[in-house]
Amino acid sequence: MGRVTARRPVRRIGPDGDVRRPDTLAVEEPLEIRIGGESLVVTMRTPGDDIDLVHGFLLAECVIGSREDVKLIRYCEGVDDQGANTYNVLDVSLAGGRPTELARRSFLSTSACGVCGKAALEDVQKQTRHPLVAEGPSVSTTLLGSLPDKLRAEQRVFEVTGGLHAAGLFTPDSELLAVREDVGRHNAVDKVVGWAVQADRVPLSETVLVVSGRASFELVQKAVMAGIPMLGAVSAPSSLAVDLADEAGLTLVGFLRGETMNVYTHASRLGF
Amino acid sequence: MGRVTARRPVRRIGPDGDVRRPDTLAVEEPLEIRIGGESLVVTMRTPGDDIDLVHGFLLAECVIGSREDVKLIRYCEGVDDQGANTYNVLDVSLAGGRPTELARRSFLSTSACGVCGKAALEDVQKQTRHPLVAEGPSVSTTLLGSLPDKLRAEQRVFEVTGGLHAAGLFTPDSELLAVREDVGRHNAVDKVVGWAVQADRVPLSETVLVVSGRASFELVQKAVMAGIPMLGAVSAPSSLAVDLADEAGLTLVGFLRGETMNVYTHASRLGF
Repeated sequence: MGRVTARRPVRRIGPDGDVRRPDTLAVEEPLEIRIGGESLVVTMRTPGDDIDLVHGFLLAECVIGSREDVKLIRYCEGVDDQGANTYNVLDVSLAGGRPTELARRSFLSTSACGVCGKAALEDVQKQTRHPLVAEGPSVSTTLLGSLPDKLRAEQRVFEVTGGLHAAGLFTPDSELLAVREDVGRHNAVDKVVGWAVQADRVPLSETVLVVSGRASFELVQKAVMAGIPMLGAVSAPSSLAVDLADEAGLTLVGFLRGETMNVYTHASRLGF
Repeated sequence: MGRVTARRPVRRIGPDGDVRRPDTLAVEEPLEIRIGGESLVVTMRTPGDDIDLVHGFLLAECVIGSREDVKLIRYCEGVDDQGANTYNVLDVSLAGGRPTELARRSFLSTSACGVCGKAALEDVQKQTRHPLVAEGPSVSTTLLGSLPDKLRAEQRVFEVTGGLHAAGLFTPDSELLAVREDVGRHNAVDKVVGWAVQADRVPLSETVLVVSGRASFELVQKAVMAGIPMLGAVSAPSSLAVDLADEAGLTLVGFLRGETMNVYTHASRLGF
């Protein structure tokens, strides 16, 4: 669709003066996901790999468990004011029809007045179809430390815009299975997981997920829902990300930067 | 509440070996916002300044226009399994009662099948109560370039965790009015704007908003809704952020780093 980057005029101010030139930006556009014609959510994302995004999002939200649960996904015929399809609305037909109860972030909204981190952790544990097992893959810290550079080498749009998050899915032998970029870090993860759903590779029990930024609760939740046993983040994790990783049995590594890294949970999968 | 940071054990791996020690992390916890007892949204945020967050969020979503629209905000008596209040649920009583139509991101969800960036821009323009005027404040690029360092000096939690976004509100004389930190960049902006709502300073027509990361559509939207005429971001903007700034009359500066910066829109407010 050629809409991953866009050019806009910019004045670049620096010690050497003031230059007017075009700048390349990461595109951000709304994507509406519908189930059986009814709106489920609108997310701001970078266009491209939308079908991946939808599969990954629906898996994380526990709406689907595998590709067999999706009968059909199609772009609605919405048009902009020039009459062109916006390609910003996707309608999903589920094999089992529309579930009676469908709520965005259902794992949080089911809590009573006492919504808290602990309730959120328990909900993820209850909802996942792929509980992590202690065995999982074994990865050396040397290999793990090399993955962010491999991911960076594939961040083609970040190279030119400086404005995108990336997520990469690796084998324990450091083979890159899939990489996706997006203005939203959660979308980048949904896209790589959604690629795996369509390739019938879920649960991703023999993979390592690497993300270019911080690790939030939401990213750990998405990894757990896909059965991914190890998550490496280039930046800091939050407290709830660590707590969920701990409870769910996921190996969480933060500040993953070559030879140095912080191992927060389940170090048993790492070879030192 | 003392819940802004939390300690967790970590194994710090580096060229010099493997050290076990406690690490300080940014706390992430869910916050549920209710209007008249009915759930509106659950957002993951860093606890603290929750009342600011709610005021800013409701202003951005066009639910309130000023502090007079809020009659009362109180924490629900939700308790965790030790019987302690979670302080994670806030119930808002509006002066005019609960509006008949209340939807998260109403400015996006109103679009027909053709949801697109252009429709999102138009919705923000339609909804804001504080259209930006061409005059606004005048700020020199030298002064603007000095603001990220001033913001950074006040990022007390980032200093120890490396895991928080920050937003700071400055006068055209570079006086820092308010700074807030959060695991979510949108929350940090909601918190500074919400501070201003309560101080009866909205529209913020004589201020500059500085954010520690990237500038998305959502951040520009929040600035526009609060009547803020200038936004400086340390990192890249998205295409839709630039488009909205252009349409709404906001001065958007990206890659704001001391002497160098990219001016994307409405340079007329800047002195070169």
